Amino acid sequence: MNEFEFIEQYLAPLASLGGLGLKDDAAILKPRSDMDLIFTKDTMVEGVHFFKDDFGSSLSSKLLRVNLSDLAAKGASPIGYLLSVALPKTTDEIFFKNFSSGLKEVQDLFDFKLLGGDTVVTEGPIVITATLIGELPVGRMIKRDGAKIGNSIWVSGTLGDSYLGFKAILEGNLNFDIIKNDVKHFKSAYYRPVPRLIIAKQLRNYATSCIDISDGLVADAFHLSDASNVKLIINFEDIPISDQSERWLKGQSNYNEAFKNFLNWGDDYELLFTADSSNDQLLKDTSTLLGLKLTKIGTVSEGKGVDIIQDKKLIKFDDSGHKHVFVSNKVL
Amino acid sequence: MNEFEFIEQYLAPLASLGGLGLKDDAAILKPRSDMDLIFTKDTMVEGVHFFKDDFGSSLSSKLLRVNLSDLAAKGASPIGYLLSVALPKTTDEIFFKNFSSGLKEVQDLFDFKLLGGDTVVTEGPIVITATLIGELPVGRMIKRDGAKIGNSIWVSGTLGDSYLGFKAILEGNLNFDIIKNDVKHFKSAYYRPVPRLIIAKQLRNYATSCIDISDGLVADAFHLSDASNVKLIINFEDIPISDQSERWLKGQSNYNEAFKNFLNWGDDYELLFTADSSNDQLLKDTSTLLGLKLTKIGTVSEGKGVDIIQDKKLIKFDDSGHKHVFVSNKVL
Repeated sequence: MNEFEFIEQYLAPLASLGGLGLKDDAAILKPRSDMDLIFTKDTMVEGVHFFKDDFGSSLSSKLLRVNLSDLAAKGASPIGYLLSVALPKTTDEIFFKNFSSGLKEVQDLFDFKLLGGDTVVTEGPIVITATLIGELPVGRMIKRDGAKIGNSIWVSGTLGDSYLGFKAILEGNLNFDIIKNDVKHFKSAYYRPVPRLIIAKQLRNYATSCIDISDGLVADAFHLSDASNVKLIINFEDIPISDQSERWLKGQSNYNEAFKNFLNWGDDYELLFTADSSNDQLLKDTSTLLGLKLTKIGTVSEGKGVDIIQDKKLIKFDDSGHKHVFVSNKVL
Repeated sequence: MNEFEFIEQYLAPLASLGGLGLKDDAAILKPRSDMDLIFTKDTMVEGVHFFKDDFGSSLSSKLLRVNLSDLAAKGASPIGYLLSVALPKTTDEIFFKNFSSGLKEVQDLFDFKLLGGDTVVTEGPIVITATLIGELPVGRMIKRDGAKIGNSIWVSGTLGDSYLGFKAILEGNLNFDIIKNDVKHFKSAYYRPVPRLIIAKQLRNYATSCIDISDGLVADAFHLSDASNVKLIINFEDIPISDQSERWLKGQSNYNEAFKNFLNWGDDYELLFTADSSNDQLLKDTSTLLGLKLTKIGTVSEGKGVDIIQDKKLIKFDDSGHKHVFVSNKVL
């Protein structure tokens, strides 16, 4: 199966009208006049962002989910995407089939389509890139620099599940018999993180700043703090984890140290955002209405950086090195 | 130098306002309401689309030029781009410096800016991807399917120079002493093809179909013919080549066979387009006014496929295999 057959058989059915049946080198989009367009681009490399030979539908599914998470953090809705795939010559048809089914899964879930892209040969690891295009009403994009002193700090979902999923895949098990039934939950969090698009519209109305947690809570809290020029004070005990993670933590020799891994690791794709504290009740209600866990984990304060507090004491994180340490699975 | 330093030192100065200083995971664009947006995406892999260890500024320059050529073929003007770079951990600073200077060169020439992107580590060959965003007045995009029977067939510039550039780089010389002074010309065509954006606006007015020649004249003529459901009859003698190429051809044992390589090879990035024959004179005048060589090379006829005619005889090209043969340097 060559590039042309892959495109014609598997990718063309995923294309929007503007994708011109993927028979052209270009795609067209008529933006709505009252909308801003938002672009995100994420690349995944075999052996770095996903396991070698781990080419199920989860690979393409995750690529789109990760990009959608960036759009959600901006308050945007997806409208289309471009795809780039660099594959070895020896790639067999089952890969093409699985890869396109992962794309279709996410397209159907979140209602957007393929616009175009490029497929090339590489002699090295597989490299896949997606450029997602989202839209939102003019001027309403949520940025990272709007956190204000006194704001509440919120996080969606639970943290750490993806870390345990990665660990389970890497180690084959989690060295803890009782949670065997939870492994499916962790792996799903790793392979198929849910982009929190469901709350994007509410965030446009209430969030003063937002970021998706791709580099770990600590690192991404630093990014928000840097951009907004404030200090984020986060209560360790309030950080939400799943029942499954709680069970795993209880089996560890040092609960707190094990918990810290949840915060240094990335790949959560939950949203970290700030909002005026007068909206605390409203956001609790929103959580119930949307069926999406939202947890207040701290307060924005004067200063710089991120303080994580337990029993009124500061927990030590290596903040000078967080850029390298906490995202060591991801970057240069 | 890590990802963050690369972005901050070298890429951030290239970013537009909508790129948010590249400090965000997303970029924003306010499209003009009377414009359509055009997207193109091209990927280049070390050892496939460029020589191993050939990491000068020409690498990033070519990535942008190739994408701009796709925009030109649609009649669009560039407004911004997203970039993805997968690099080995061992990449040194001189690469970053050269790479960003190649980007700047093309941005400055054609007046558009960096919106955002992604930088990741790979253990394999370097893989770089750009998504270009262009604009044109609503509904005015030139497609491939508009060639009409009786239309004239035109090509911009000259063909084959890039092929000889590639050959010169690969072989160290061109086995032909007299043209040593022309090698610079060929290498420039290979490393820095000129995207024909200068004629994009005129093409919107007069071209019935257009494609950029990235896979070779024969292969891309087939693409136009397929999309438009017509036959393209091209006169071999009318195909424009440079004086430099002419000199090289005259040194070959078989001029015609050597010439054929010019048409099977890709990487020309000239525009192949069709226009009503009543515009023949106007396009000749346009050529003079713009200082861009435009040559009428044939006529659109009823039927399918591409006929290349010399001395009233059909030149044999392997049309069944053109997708693989003619683009063997590029695809699966």
